[in-house]
Amino acid sequence: MKKHGGMIYDKNSKILDFSANIHPEGVPAEVKKAMMDALEASSYYPDPECRDLRYSIAEKEHVKMEHVICGNGAAELIFHLAFTVGAKTLLLPVPSFLEYEDAFLAAAKGNLMIEKYQIDPVSFLIKEDLLDKMDASVDVLVLCQPNNPTGQLVEMNVMQRILDRAKEQNIILLVDECFLDFVIDGKRYSVIPRYQEYPNVFILKSFTKMYGIPGIRLGYGICSDTRLLKQLRTSLQSWNVSHVAQAAGIAACGMKEYEEWTADRIAQNREWLIKRLRLLGFQVWEGSANYVFFRVKGCTDLCEICMRQEICIRSCSNYRGLEDDYYRIAVKTEEENRRLIRTLTEWKEGKER
Amino acid sequence: MKKHGGMIYDKNSKILDFSANIHPEGVPAEVKKAMMDALEASSYYPDPECRDLRYSIAEKEHVKMEHVICGNGAAELIFHLAFTVGAKTLLLPVPSFLEYEDAFLAAAKGNLMIEKYQIDPVSFLIKEDLLDKMDASVDVLVLCQPNNPTGQLVEMNVMQRILDRAKEQNIILLVDECFLDFVIDGKRYSVIPRYQEYPNVFILKSFTKMYGIPGIRLGYGICSDTRLLKQLRTSLQSWNVSHVAQAAGIAACGMKEYEEWTADRIAQNREWLIKRLRLLGFQVWEGSANYVFFRVKGCTDLCEICMRQEICIRSCSNYRGLEDDYYRIAVKTEEENRRLIRTLTEWKEGKER
Repeated sequence: MKKHGGMIYDKNSKILDFSANIHPEGVPAEVKKAMMDALEASSYYPDPECRDLRYSIAEKEHVKMEHVICGNGAAELIFHLAFTVGAKTLLLPVPSFLEYEDAFLAAAKGNLMIEKYQIDPVSFLIKEDLLDKMDASVDVLVLCQPNNPTGQLVEMNVMQRILDRAKEQNIILLVDECFLDFVIDGKRYSVIPRYQEYPNVFILKSFTKMYGIPGIRLGYGICSDTRLLKQLRTSLQSWNVSHVAQAAGIAACGMKEYEEWTADRIAQNREWLIKRLRLLGFQVWEGSANYVFFRVKGCTDLCEICMRQEICIRSCSNYRGLEDDYYRIAVKTEEENRRLIRTLTEWKEGKER
Repeated sequence: MKKHGGMIYDKNSKILDFSANIHPEGVPAEVKKAMMDALEASSYYPDPECRDLRYSIAEKEHVKMEHVICGNGAAELIFHLAFTVGAKTLLLPVPSFLEYEDAFLAAAKGNLMIEKYQIDPVSFLIKEDLLDKMDASVDVLVLCQPNNPTGQLVEMNVMQRILDRAKEQNIILLVDECFLDFVIDGKRYSVIPRYQEYPNVFILKSFTKMYGIPGIRLGYGICSDTRLLKQLRTSLQSWNVSHVAQAAGIAACGMKEYEEWTADRIAQNREWLIKRLRLLGFQVWEGSANYVFFRVKGCTDLCEICMRQEICIRSCSNYRGLEDDYYRIAVKTEEENRRLIRTLTEWKEGKER
């Protein structure tokens, strides 16, 4: 399992993990308390319909409760959506998160045509030429907003044209907004306010990253096509979201200010990291997410170099369309970010000596 | 969602829940401690390969680690196995657990032939006439050992003939042994010791019931067909089993004596319940599981009657092939069992007065 970030599973590990894009402060106290309390209810089956949680999400996102579906992590919903829609042709911007391709391939049992849209490798911005690929032969288009690993946002005038084109061509549009809460004023880049006009749009969100609970698993989808949601629900077991996860999500829904505070702080620390990486001579993209995407031209062993100092960073070599010298790091606490930059600086200086 | 037992989700509920077949003592202290500790690691992704857990299960079950797959509850594995094998024809003894049919129907998107084997409604024993239905047209046969809701075991001489016939006819045999650990000397009724001779057999087990953690979700499968396991793994998201569930399972694997103690105690309390229900004039089947299956001829409102006393029992009216006057109750603590019997006795006396 070398393909993903987040490869450190052990809380006792000494490795400083920049490979997983998780909130630098981990789990907020309110969410932790809710999870501890929920453990007391582990002898009861969880509510299969996640009613209280879906109610809270609906309030938070200003959507209808019947348009919300919960999953054992957003990843579960990707796999089951793929199964439910049964796509024959998938349009996929590259580079992007690997789980999409894996999910649709698994659902199609390999019998899938993947149409790739190569994102411009200079800006890494998704542009209007994507529209040319959106013809009636495409069943599903996946967009990650902001994109992973690049951190780039699709501009809303472009997104609007993508939405319209998808509707017109009968393409199911999966918009993964799992990292959007980390973006300052991220709501401006969300398609959620328009989801009722576009029943062909399925928006994916996650509590995992913002609330530091990838080990607990909780994601959700928003879609106004209730028939699709019902089919998706039928493809899932009855009790897919644990008690602990439901409780964590309900607690998290009340923490709007925490999200805003986080986005501000991430932005400051991201800018600092970008500046310092550029000072080291690396090529760094100006992303908007809680991670930074960069290239160290010709250097393919930066992961090993960092690991010698017990720091884990994410190589992007297994992303489609990227060379072996692209990397991604999470924005972590100031002290942790400094430790990474110190390690990279020492390596750079040692090399130049 | 009226179709399942375990409809009480709230630990503060006053309802005494006989509808879910969970260990009467709830979560053992060792497992609870492991879960509490694991919450501290929620900011890490869980190990996608569940290595430590699969190692522990392999030791416990005397199987090879590479033949073990873990799921977010056994139910997840049923749904994904159904998807993976892509059955066109399912042979299903009735009555039996509903989730099998739901899973295979969902996987086939409704395009499934369900061949039913009506279990003899006097003994509710699965007999050799099942073999007559096992021809080459059948893709999958599901057996629940002991059966749910009847609590009846398939005798091992019959099981042996089923195993051979399934292999000969190229039928995938899903044997659900989720309640077998509650049976005294249950290992004698397990097909696990023979699993390597029958790569077409997939055995399903769960930690949910014995360790009182249905709210946490943890089940596993054992199968010697590594190709099938690999396909099944591919159909699942990367991180399907939470940190808390993995930790709970590892702790539970060391508790063999607890399982034996439980089986003894359940047997005593089950016998007591059977005797008392018979004294009330109910028709009760002599099952081997941690639940009791009975009929109150002509009485279709026993659930409502019990609910007036804040006791929830399981109506079996939505099981295929059962009339509306069949019921299932879990074997709970002595005091709780007494409370149920008291309620039923008062109702019976009130009716006769």
